[in-house]
Amino acid sequence: MSSPAIERILRGPTGLGTAGLQLRPPAPAAEVAAPAVHAPDVAAPEAPTAALPTVEASLVEAVAAEAVAAAASVLEAVLPDLQLPSVATPPSAPTLPSAPALLFGAPAAAPSGGKPKLGDPIPGLYHHPIAEPDPVRVEALSLKIKAWAIDEIELYPPEWEKDFDGFSTGRYMVACHPDAPSVDHLMLAARLMVAENAVDDCYCEDLGGSPIGLGSRLLLAHTALDPLHTTAEYHPAWEASLSEDAPRRSYRSAMDYFVRAATPSQADRFRHDMARLHLGYLAEAAWSESDHVPEVWEYLAMRQFNNFRPCPTITDTVGGYELPAELHALPAMQRVISLAGNATTIVNDLYSYTKELAGPGLHLNLPVVISEREGVSRQEGYLKAVEVHNELMHAFEAESAALAVACPVPTLVRFLRGVAAWLDGNHHWHQTNTHRYSLPDFW
Amino acid sequence: MSSPAIERILRGPTGLGTAGLQLRPPAPAAEVAAPAVHAPDVAAPEAPTAALPTVEASLVEAVAAEAVAAAASVLEAVLPDLQLPSVATPPSAPTLPSAPALLFGAPAAAPSGGKPKLGDPIPGLYHHPIAEPDPVRVEALSLKIKAWAIDEIELYPPEWEKDFDGFSTGRYMVACHPDAPSVDHLMLAARLMVAENAVDDCYCEDLGGSPIGLGSRLLLAHTALDPLHTTAEYHPAWEASLSEDAPRRSYRSAMDYFVRAATPSQADRFRHDMARLHLGYLAEAAWSESDHVPEVWEYLAMRQFNNFRPCPTITDTVGGYELPAELHALPAMQRVISLAGNATTIVNDLYSYTKELAGPGLHLNLPVVISEREGVSRQEGYLKAVEVHNELMHAFEAESAALAVACPVPTLVRFLRGVAAWLDGNHHWHQTNTHRYSLPDFW
Repeated sequence: MSSPAIERILRGPTGLGTAGLQLRPPAPAAEVAAPAVHAPDVAAPEAPTAALPTVEASLVEAVAAEAVAAAASVLEAVLPDLQLPSVATPPSAPTLPSAPALLFGAPAAAPSGGKPKLGDPIPGLYHHPIAEPDPVRVEALSLKIKAWAIDEIELYPPEWEKDFDGFSTGRYMVACHPDAPSVDHLMLAARLMVAENAVDDCYCEDLGGSPIGLGSRLLLAHTALDPLHTTAEYHPAWEASLSEDAPRRSYRSAMDYFVRAATPSQADRFRHDMARLHLGYLAEAAWSESDHVPEVWEYLAMRQFNNFRPCPTITDTVGGYELPAELHALPAMQRVISLAGNATTIVNDLYSYTKELAGPGLHLNLPVVISEREGVSRQEGYLKAVEVHNELMHAFEAESAALAVACPVPTLVRFLRGVAAWLDGNHHWHQTNTHRYSLPDFW
Repeated sequence: MSSPAIERILRGPTGLGTAGLQLRPPAPAAEVAAPAVHAPDVAAPEAPTAALPTVEASLVEAVAAEAVAAAASVLEAVLPDLQLPSVATPPSAPTLPSAPALLFGAPAAAPSGGKPKLGDPIPGLYHHPIAEPDPVRVEALSLKIKAWAIDEIELYPPEWEKDFDGFSTGRYMVACHPDAPSVDHLMLAARLMVAENAVDDCYCEDLGGSPIGLGSRLLLAHTALDPLHTTAEYHPAWEASLSEDAPRRSYRSAMDYFVRAATPSQADRFRHDMARLHLGYLAEAAWSESDHVPEVWEYLAMRQFNNFRPCPTITDTVGGYELPAELHALPAMQRVISLAGNATTIVNDLYSYTKELAGPGLHLNLPVVISEREGVSRQEGYLKAVEVHNELMHAFEAESAALAVACPVPTLVRFLRGVAAWLDGNHHWHQTNTHRYSLPDFW
């Protein structure tokens, strides 16, 4: 840990790439530092974003490269311990492990230019291509998740079957969890994904959703994840309510399975991420109710909550191991998770742009909000949103590599790689799900 | 650990008093139990409420008594290690420690009957009286919290000073945290309490609050607790937003102090509890917007989220120690915390009943909802709400004592006592805060 690169990384927050690395606090502020106060030794301040406004994109890239290079030897020492039976490796990946390949997969080839064809990636979008998910696993998972949806949950009426199949939950989850030890582990993620979509569709969006009364519906559904503890008289009516509609039936069943496979800390983490998600839905609903177009930073704040976060953060449960709660709570880890969630959520904004355009009213997404609030064309808004995504992805990768160097615990490094793999799988699914998505005519 | 009482407690969920004690799972359900799945060893199912519907109140009391008795020897062994310089002891407390006194304080004397006088407790309300909080600490804390509110936060205009003083934050927090090592520790709780009130008053309730747009306001305020991680271009506007109104200024400053004194896991716990609180506000707002009176169980579900929970759960940070994240996440601990939060939140519904009646429109609280939905008088609704509170308090105490026996780790037992002390302090503050509260004419 004495190379110039690592020393620079550990020196402190001189740029975005190192800002999350303050695992030890500077001198605390006046009051709590007073001798009379005995704060716990592990107290860690959270000011990871303080240096952000002065960061140049080029510095981010430079620090990222340094951190990634420095991570290589650490990762080589740590990673042989990991069991990753089914990591998808792009055909062009190098045969000798390097930090980028170990944590993040190979970068995409240079764009070919011109108009993207159906199923092509978004031109200029920074991403890591993955191999097509194992078709045997995809088929097995697809059969099981459909059986669960129909037989256990009565999730949807027959006329929604085409959309259920077109969503390709099985292919999606196999792509996002390459290190899952079994199809049963993948089912943990698949059920939750289906349930989250049921709540979003039926309560918030296309299939009967509305901002009116949403706060009540989401809270009552949230009790399927975070149960009510009440008196003997009122308990049965709550219990019965969890079977009353498809969103609650699916949340409840998916959570029951998840809780049996997860540690209590992993279940608590998931509940927290779902509370965040529901807060995000409610902020979006508040704007929708009044046709308000938020500032770009406000939209990005909402989107940090209405976010894929609950999906990558179960990567350890789906992988059959645990990132300990203390490591999950580290400010540097929280920042890495947020950056990853924000980048991958903007991928959704970009690939679903034309689908959302087709709906009634003005559907908020990052290209639209940039266009509206910054007075630029839809095309310029879209292309700027690609740049926002890329900056967040680079920041995620830089800080993830730096954290792996600073805290080379095998479960932590595996978790970081699991989050990165989830992002790659999520991109692949969006790119190739031509049943749902097609690109605008901007190139 | 071999007395009949403990054996009965550990036997399993035969009643509410033991339902939280399943620290080891029964055989998992079909799929995840399949040999191919390697769930973590510590997996613990969460079905603590399965036995609830069949529970009789008398059984709750009996199991509570057993659990409390069984806890005595465990607590005696554990508690000498604790440093509790300023635990308020009622004058009538026994000099030899017993489990109830160690965990819960002495019970109230039998009610004297007749009409309660100003400052009397609610007749029939199960509670533990406490000694008047140390006036020296109260004075020191009151000065400091007012200086913070005025000098650091610019919390309120001069005309709100009387209400700020009348809230008696200093006296409240000294009553709720008898084991805080210093006034600086108490300030951690006092700032957060003031900040939570500022958000509730200014965004939701009396002082300009409204259900319209609340989802947006609460989410943006939540980023003062759970920061945004975004690009260099959009970061500064978010950063600046945290100073734009008193709720965000107070959340941000209170959280900055808290994070410096807390471990990352404690900060994560607090964020989760605040996300729950904000979800609760938004469910209540959804009903308010449409003048909807929920079912009683729905109201109780909302109130488990719009709840004092974030206050007692920081008892360890304020006490200068840490309940480890794994112990906090245990299903039995989560249930104890929920029961405690629910009981103490209904105390607020009961003491603020006449204050809320005086406001415009129908303010939902448990007596009103019971009266409306069960077709009984306001008086009957109120008296039934007292019984709901009492059942929750007894359940909290039974399960808390049982958990202390099952898991006699000093920090866990101290945390449980801290939660109980918070409830006692909260009751005392409500009972004696005649600036805000007076009782209805129901006796």
